[in-house]
Amino acid sequence: MPNTFGHLFRITTWGESHGKGVGVVIDGCPPRIPLSEEDIQKELDRRRPGQSKITTQRKERDIAAILSGTFNGMTLGTPIMIWVKNEDARPEAYAEMEKIYRPSHADFTYQAKYGIRNWQGGGRSSARETIGRVAGGAVGGKVLQFLYPEIEVIAWVSEVHGLKSLCDPNTVTREDVESNILRWPNAENLGEALKEIERAQKEGDTVGGIVECIVRGMPVGLGEPVFDKLEADLAKAMLSLPASKGFEIGSGFRGALMRGSEHNDPFYMEGNKVRTKTNWSGGVQGGISNGENLYFRVAFKPVATIAQEQQTVSVDGEEVILRARGRHDPCVLPRAVPIVEAMTKLVLVDHALRQKAIELTPRSFS
Amino acid sequence: MPNTFGHLFRITTWGESHGKGVGVVIDGCPPRIPLSEEDIQKELDRRRPGQSKITTQRKERDIAAILSGTFNGMTLGTPIMIWVKNEDARPEAYAEMEKIYRPSHADFTYQAKYGIRNWQGGGRSSARETIGRVAGGAVGGKVLQFLYPEIEVIAWVSEVHGLKSLCDPNTVTREDVESNILRWPNAENLGEALKEIERAQKEGDTVGGIVECIVRGMPVGLGEPVFDKLEADLAKAMLSLPASKGFEIGSGFRGALMRGSEHNDPFYMEGNKVRTKTNWSGGVQGGISNGENLYFRVAFKPVATIAQEQQTVSVDGEEVILRARGRHDPCVLPRAVPIVEAMTKLVLVDHALRQKAIELTPRSFS
Amino acid sequence: MPNTFGHLFRITTWGESHGKGVGVVIDGCPPRIPLSEEDIQKELDRRRPGQSKITTQRKERDIAAILSGTFNGMTLGTPIMIWVKNEDARPEAYAEMEKIYRPSHADFTYQAKYGIRNWQGGGRSSARETIGRVAGGAVGGKVLQFLYPEIEVIAWVSEVHGLKSLCDPNTVTREDVESNILRWPNAENLGEALKEIERAQKEGDTVGGIVECIVRGMPVGLGEPVFDKLEADLAKAMLSLPASKGFEIGSGFRGALMRGSEHNDPFYMEGNKVRTKTNWSGGVQGGISNGENLYFRVAFKPVATIAQEQQTVSVDGEEVILRARGRHDPCVLPRAVPIVEAMTKLVLVDHALRQKAIELTPRSFS
Amino acid sequence: MPNTFGHLFRITTWGESHGKGVGVVIDGCPPRIPLSEEDIQKELDRRRPGQSKITTQRKERDIAAILSGTFNGMTLGTPIMIWVKNEDARPEAYAEMEKIYRPSHADFTYQAKYGIRNWQGGGRSSARETIGRVAGGAVGGKVLQFLYPEIEVIAWVSEVHGLKSLCDPNTVTREDVESNILRWPNAENLGEALKEIERAQKEGDTVGGIVECIVRGMPVGLGEPVFDKLEADLAKAMLSLPASKGFEIGSGFRGALMRGSEHNDPFYMEGNKVRTKTNWSGGVQGGISNGENLYFRVAFKPVATIAQEQQTVSVDGEEVILRARGRHDPCVLPRAVPIVEAMTKLVLVDHALRQKAIELTPRSFS
Repeated sequence: MPNTFGHLFRITTWGESHGKGVGVVIDGCPPRIPLSEEDIQKELDRRRPGQSKITTQRKERDIAAILSGTFNGMTLGTPIMIWVKNEDARPEAYAEMEKIYRPSHADFTYQAKYGIRNWQGGGRSSARETIGRVAGGAVGGKVLQFLYPEIEVIAWVSEVHGLKSLCDPNTVTREDVESNILRWPNAENLGEALKEIERAQKEGDTVGGIVECIVRGMPVGLGEPVFDKLEADLAKAMLSLPASKGFEIGSGFRGALMRGSEHNDPFYMEGNKVRTKTNWSGGVQGGISNGENLYFRVAFKPVATIAQEQQTVSVDGEEVILRARGRHDPCVLPRAVPIVEAMTKLVLVDHALRQKAIELTPRSFS
Repeated sequence: MPNTFGHLFRITTWGESHGKGVGVVIDGCPPRIPLSEEDIQKELDRRRPGQSKITTQRKERDIAAILSGTFNGMTLGTPIMIWVKNEDARPEAYAEMEKIYRPSHADFTYQAKYGIRNWQGGGRSSARETIGRVAGGAVGGKVLQFLYPEIEVIAWVSEVHGLKSLCDPNTVTREDVESNILRWPNAENLGEALKEIERAQKEGDTVGGIVECIVRGMPVGLGEPVFDKLEADLAKAMLSLPASKGFEIGSGFRGALMRGSEHNDPFYMEGNKVRTKTNWSGGVQGGISNGENLYFRVAFKPVATIAQEQQTVSVDGEEVILRARGRHDPCVLPRAVPIVEAMTKLVLVDHALRQKAIELTPRSFS
Repeated sequence: MPNTFGHLFRITTWGESHGKGVGVVIDGCPPRIPLSEEDIQKELDRRRPGQSKITTQRKERDIAAILSGTFNGMTLGTPIMIWVKNEDARPEAYAEMEKIYRPSHADFTYQAKYGIRNWQGGGRSSARETIGRVAGGAVGGKVLQFLYPEIEVIAWVSEVHGLKSLCDPNTVTREDVESNILRWPNAENLGEALKEIERAQKEGDTVGGIVECIVRGMPVGLGEPVFDKLEADLAKAMLSLPASKGFEIGSGFRGALMRGSEHNDPFYMEGNKVRTKTNWSGGVQGGISNGENLYFRVAFKPVATIAQEQQTVSVDGEEVILRARGRHDPCVLPRAVPIVEAMTKLVLVDHALRQKAIELTPRSFS
Repeated sequence: MPNTFGHLFRITTWGESHGKGVGVVIDGCPPRIPLSEEDIQKELDRRRPGQSKITTQRKERDIAAILSGTFNGMTLGTPIMIWVKNEDARPEAYAEMEKIYRPSHADFTYQAKYGIRNWQGGGRSSARETIGRVAGGAVGGKVLQFLYPEIEVIAWVSEVHGLKSLCDPNTVTREDVESNILRWPNAENLGEALKEIERAQKEGDTVGGIVECIVRGMPVGLGEPVFDKLEADLAKAMLSLPASKGFEIGSGFRGALMRGSEHNDPFYMEGNKVRTKTNWSGGVQGGISNGENLYFRVAFKPVATIAQEQQTVSVDGEEVILRARGRHDPCVLPRAVPIVEAMTKLVLVDHALRQKAIELTPRSFS
């Protein structure tokens, strides 16, 4: 369970930062879905480090190889194993990590939990683990597209260190997002946002921010009404991402400031389709999608690796100073965007298959 | 899966608002834990409606009966079935719900998903479902207490419609919380907070707010590093609660405004114990508890049932006016407190058992 | 997990022999399946003790009450909770069980595993636990019938203490089976079989035997090819029954005596349907149903409760003599028949829903 | 789920016969267990084809590579990914399989279920899938050994086409079993058994048989009392093996011929240990191990690939003759031995971890 996500469409990620590679096994993927290594590579390339000056300069090509589960460009219904070799491994660069717990990393907690850890590059706690998620999400996205051709999952960087991009979630496009290295869909204050990051970078520091996500073309009826509410599974998916600290859907924390008469989304008819006038619900009611856009936000803390001296302790229980270190992302947000999208697709495709399983007869709404 | 929570310590809730009752089956509870109906009743009484003027006036005694799984006051290691009869069922009071979808309730989405729904009192989407959670949490709490006698789970209402209670999470006591009907641990502005709710109530309206939760006496090493991160499972638990719209841990959304140099929690030694000076992490690093206090916040939207006319649609697709209705909570927050605690205990006890399973030898930290 | 069976159509049984009752929670049942208490009662009545002189004389009416999950005679898609009260509980009749481990019962192993046990009537290890299975199977059967109206699950007693009923599995009818108290579909040697049981009964003894099961009208394509092979899940289902010691499908142990040229089932065409001339496979190939009749056999040991003195040990580790006891089945087989059918339906309905989930497009065979 | 086995110690196998390899991901393995590629290779070598004249002459070295989850020769507690490249792939040798369904293989059922199949060498239905099981079992065995150093899992070929090896399960040794190419622990009739196989081989035929397994040094208390009975999980494990048709534990089908007074295993004391005089139970009572030897038997049908012409149908629905084919095992049994052992270890280690999870306090027996 610990490394598996999903009930019917299930991914299990594996691999450490400096081992022989990282990857994912996808089980429960329906057969006869067109799938190529390019489908996966395209998404991995969006996640890859070294894309720009505001992300880490590590050079990892992250080439996806499908080792099983497809035949003649189609899924077989059998497990799909995807492997990405580790290339830019420089374990010596991490030598001090053997002896020192980096603040706000997982070094200490891994050691405490397991009594052992692969200290090279963070081992399993490295962000490289998310490669398996992105690869899995790419496959999940293909299935989702097959089931609901109109569905569209778009995430973007909506805040950097307090500065907001202020785009309209309902109309923002993939092109807007991908038009710049920050995945910031607002040309007006893009420069300001980049400057914010560069300023932190110069000072050997990092910044936090927010990623927003919208899903358009949502079907009605996905989600389960009790523990596996759609928003609950999304919250779990997002809080399972490295560096995430918060999740909100629809009105979110702002909803706590409202009154019921403001917050309730009045129903109306659009042709024979039930719609809501506002969407404070964020596309879910009682854990089940109502057909409106799914809309949520994820808070990311600033990256913990900074180029400044820090106070910490050694594995032997001595208080020590951790020297400044290099080659890391000043801002994780642009690379988080495809990961948020991948996890969203994984949640949706799993619920889509779950819904198929219990739909014995045509529903009154669809 | 849809109605089950947990991997090793598992609860399955069942029951509709106006059926023969609601309840829970607990599977995976270790044997020989002292357990009585009083242990459960105590927590149910905190959740029960009709406790004060600021919660719904429905009169439900919610008496817990244990039907299986205990013997001579001890758990047997077999499934514990707990049943709470429905008493104050007045289906006729909900007659219009058969024909009309209430805004921001689950009426429409249930109908859309299942093609059928028990419209009496919201059926399965009723907050009565949380009775099973609270009962399950009471049992989970007993096991947790056995494993970690120093653990303490305390939740409280920290915001009502924007007004903050401003207590210190690290020192707030259960007595502070239970000293008033709002579970508001700040005597100074309690009156103001109550007035806020009463004002909404008079206007036939409801208010949202925030519940905070702290866990003290946390062991090191609970949680899984990838998908089942402790914060991920907590996020899922909280977003599975009716009316919740957001979750944040430690710094949360505020962390998005910070720099790494501020946010990182420096390690230091307290005797031979590894501690952190700050706790922006909220007690978890890399998904695993670090022994500091677990600290998180949950946003609740205002209750959707209001005593005002609302625009909506009928099951036949006609736009109609929903008349004002009565007998509901103007503010769900005080009753949410024991539910948040119950879900927290369920997450913790599950991870505690999972940790026991893999701990073959003494760890270097504990 | 321990008390739950199935992946999508899941039952969780609960309850001890002398507690407040036994029952089942069914989760994952599709909505809008007609379901009444009579549907369940009908199957429970077939399992009930006291039906004839060759089964235990305990008088239990075993009345099923549905506490949740249905509305106006239809399933809601929410958990279905079914409760059967314990009525003929006479704990005092079992007083010596507190102190003594009955040979070949679960008294010792429960105590060893849990360090506690409900010794009244065997507690959770009582055959009363199978009430939940039969109730769950009744619901599963309704769903199965909806999906595959031609499916027919028939089990019968095929051997008693070595005497064989020798019916043709492909043509035996429910009427043949239910025509007598032994569920023995062969009028010719029924008398002999009954005499075999009565002889054992007179001598305070019990007899073992075999239950066979056939499923006609099987769809092609149910089952999973690796661990969750249809025969693997059936084997688990059958070996999870009290007193079962063996399972074989198709040729079974006889297949071990054969050569490939004999055992292979040649394919031929019947219209445009692929058929096999023989059915040594028993309806499954590679773990997946091939549309031929599913056919398997389950071996049951003789009931462990006998009316003879037996050597055993006490909970205090002393060797003692267990006195003769009464009121038990000389032969469990006729009552095992509906239980075998119930478990078969549960396996099939679960795989049917799993298949629905991955079937995105029409298959080439169906 | 379909390709995953186990609850806490979980393996997921992946890979097709003629793809880029086969393998396994092991999740839930406790940390700090010594583990090397040699540990795995040793078991794979026992499963490997081409070991002798009575098994297939395909030359596959089946070299295990650990891609993740270990560090400095120890398990990390993270997923262990093991990959075995496919080497002797000759897809052209299987060309006719694209068009023809081989009798009693999974060609037809895969096509019927998925609407697509990798027909090269049987794809996922190839016995190569069991490589992942054996690798997983090797790891499971290391954990089991750590937990219960006295445990010993030994399987052997006990019957070939009706000829019995007649060894004493309680004393048979690994050396007896490995002393010959048939894994037949009886020197007296070994020649006869080999002749039986050679005779079939010469006639282009194959033979079935039985594998037996004993586990000595069993702890008391493993297993769950209801659905996950130890024998139920073993039955599932064994029936999930290619070509298996039956499973029996302890008395098995012979138990159906017995009376209770014969079958009951009388308890006695051996020092302060509770023992049974006979072991018709096969080491389990009520689904839980009682400390006696675990003993079970698995029936294997003759291999379906034979060097004789066979009647079958094509994918286009035409009746055709399948030509004789070569290079396959005349008798799968010796290679099944390490696979049966692997699955046994996987069942035991999973239940061992499950028991650890619920054991909060010392049990009265151990």
